[in-house]
Amino acid sequence: MVGLARPIVQAPMGGGPSTPELAAAVAGAGGLGFLAAGYKSADGLAAEIAATRKLTDRFGVNLFVPGPRSQPERFGPYVEGLREAAGAEVGEPRWSDDDWEAKLELLRREPVAVVSFTFGCPPSEVVEGLQASGAEAWITVTSPEEARQAAAAGADALIVQGHEAGAHQGSFDDEGAGEPFGLLALLQLVAAEVELPLVASGGIATGAGLAAVLAAGASAAQIGTAFLLCPEAGTSEPHRQALRAGGLTEITRAFTGRRARGIVNRFLAEHRDAPSAYPEIHYATAPIRAAARKHDEAEDLNLWAGQAYALAREEPAADVVARLDAEARQALEAALRADS
Amino acid sequence: MVGLARPIVQAPMGGGPSTPELAAAVAGAGGLGFLAAGYKSADGLAAEIAATRKLTDRFGVNLFVPGPRSQPERFGPYVEGLREAAGAEVGEPRWSDDDWEAKLELLRREPVAVVSFTFGCPPSEVVEGLQASGAEAWITVTSPEEARQAAAAGADALIVQGHEAGAHQGSFDDEGAGEPFGLLALLQLVAAEVELPLVASGGIATGAGLAAVLAAGASAAQIGTAFLLCPEAGTSEPHRQALRAGGLTEITRAFTGRRARGIVNRFLAEHRDAPSAYPEIHYATAPIRAAARKHDEAEDLNLWAGQAYALAREEPAADVVARLDAEARQALEAALRADS
Repeated sequence: MVGLARPIVQAPMGGGPSTPELAAAVAGAGGLGFLAAGYKSADGLAAEIAATRKLTDRFGVNLFVPGPRSQPERFGPYVEGLREAAGAEVGEPRWSDDDWEAKLELLRREPVAVVSFTFGCPPSEVVEGLQASGAEAWITVTSPEEARQAAAAGADALIVQGHEAGAHQGSFDDEGAGEPFGLLALLQLVAAEVELPLVASGGIATGAGLAAVLAAGASAAQIGTAFLLCPEAGTSEPHRQALRAGGLTEITRAFTGRRARGIVNRFLAEHRDAPSAYPEIHYATAPIRAAARKHDEAEDLNLWAGQAYALAREEPAADVVARLDAEARQALEAALRADS
Repeated sequence: MVGLARPIVQAPMGGGPSTPELAAAVAGAGGLGFLAAGYKSADGLAAEIAATRKLTDRFGVNLFVPGPRSQPERFGPYVEGLREAAGAEVGEPRWSDDDWEAKLELLRREPVAVVSFTFGCPPSEVVEGLQASGAEAWITVTSPEEARQAAAAGADALIVQGHEAGAHQGSFDDEGAGEPFGLLALLQLVAAEVELPLVASGGIATGAGLAAVLAAGASAAQIGTAFLLCPEAGTSEPHRQALRAGGLTEITRAFTGRRARGIVNRFLAEHRDAPSAYPEIHYATAPIRAAARKHDEAEDLNLWAGQAYALAREEPAADVVARLDAEARQALEAALRADS
């Protein structure tokens, strides 16, 4: 796996929080930055990559693997209900492949350090094409079975995501079998299945948490929520306020039609029956969310946050990286002293 | 906290698996054994304590804190449905305090090393009474809020249980607010709230898992499922077979009316709508489960298992303790080498 001076990978956070400045700050502190390609055009991604390259070359790009179209019967009643409540602010529910081929073409042409995937297992030709261009291919998994598939597809490393994680679960199938795994159980199970380097993700917000996943055998932690309050992050003001205010989180399909963890607000609480239909519901709610951001209205916004979000601090991203790594080392030393 | 040569606490496993022999084997290997007082009379518990004392004095006893009675409207339709399907094998749904006062009296009279509590926060007088007799009082918590309450009640240590755990969630309120926490997120949040020693519980089945919770700041791990296949455990044959066979786990109220994690079988799959009503539903399903055990019929049995149960091994409990501790030390050393 790509060498890291500090075992911290910034999580790609679509919809605003991930910025070239955040990626560069994490990379500059010895970690790996990440851009979120999701919801952007290939041209938009190219511009963001170019902006980031001016600051660092130690960053990755995360792609959404396109999924199946949903039948209108599936999302129709939900979207109709939104229209009755929100009127003109509801968007057209449509499918999209998120400019998949054009983004792959771009990344093969202008390789970055790592290309990661969520929402599915890319075909092995895609993995090999990126590897041939010089990038590493990482695949996000949420179960031992997905880990086996990702290894078979030729991944260089696996991002092992527990259900504690903020924002989207990266599961291959949003309605896949079984309950979501907690990160620590999943790390042990995946390590028993595959030989690949593992990057642990989900609810890691302190040096102690980082130390824990390193002790569990992960090569690094992928950290998202703990960067949301950094000045370099593009987190919206209402989102920042919600993170400071506290409250419970929950996994919801209300905003995008795919399971994702956010702080409970009015929109989430009123739509616990939202169906699985991604990206159709994402496009339907996009104008509602855009209006909420514009009006500083947190109650209609997707307030993505992992379970440990209360531990996020308002400090520069480089300080987060340095603090977590230093605390992790102390935590490992203390654990070793205690257990001998 | 009580000193441990190896940072492993055997989880109390009611309904059979916990035995004096298992507790003694874990204690003999340097950990702490545990008896499960739940579902037993105070006299039955006294006999089990006496039997265990002949083998070791390094063990604890876990008590269920009595909860509220449920109204018949709540469990009536569910129990009626069971009667229609299973006929005479359904028991009378009744409330019980699990012989609470008599068990406390017994434990004050004949103190054990640790008395732990699940399903609620004992009053501080109860905690103080046990402490006065020489025992430590540990309280099981599943959220930061429960941790605050348990600390206020005077607990000596907290058992921090993640949703990965097998069998019952120890939550104070079975219908309490919010989604269950993953262990690693919960450990970080609880450590930020209270100064007490923490015992981590939920899905810890390997030395790497043990190392992880020690690195996260826990003083020890409480391990249950990883002991289920030991010869000293009282695990039933059909339960053992299900653990070897594999399959998904899920949190269910089908068997007891309280959330508990088990391997999905027919009874669980057919009763995903079971209401929250403990211990009434426990008593209603008890004859069904007893008959299933007698006839080696795993499909009607509560097949409690944590999310990492596939990693449990068939070996003596002392070997489990020694192996996990040795592997944990190696894992901590490896993590420290990698991160420097």
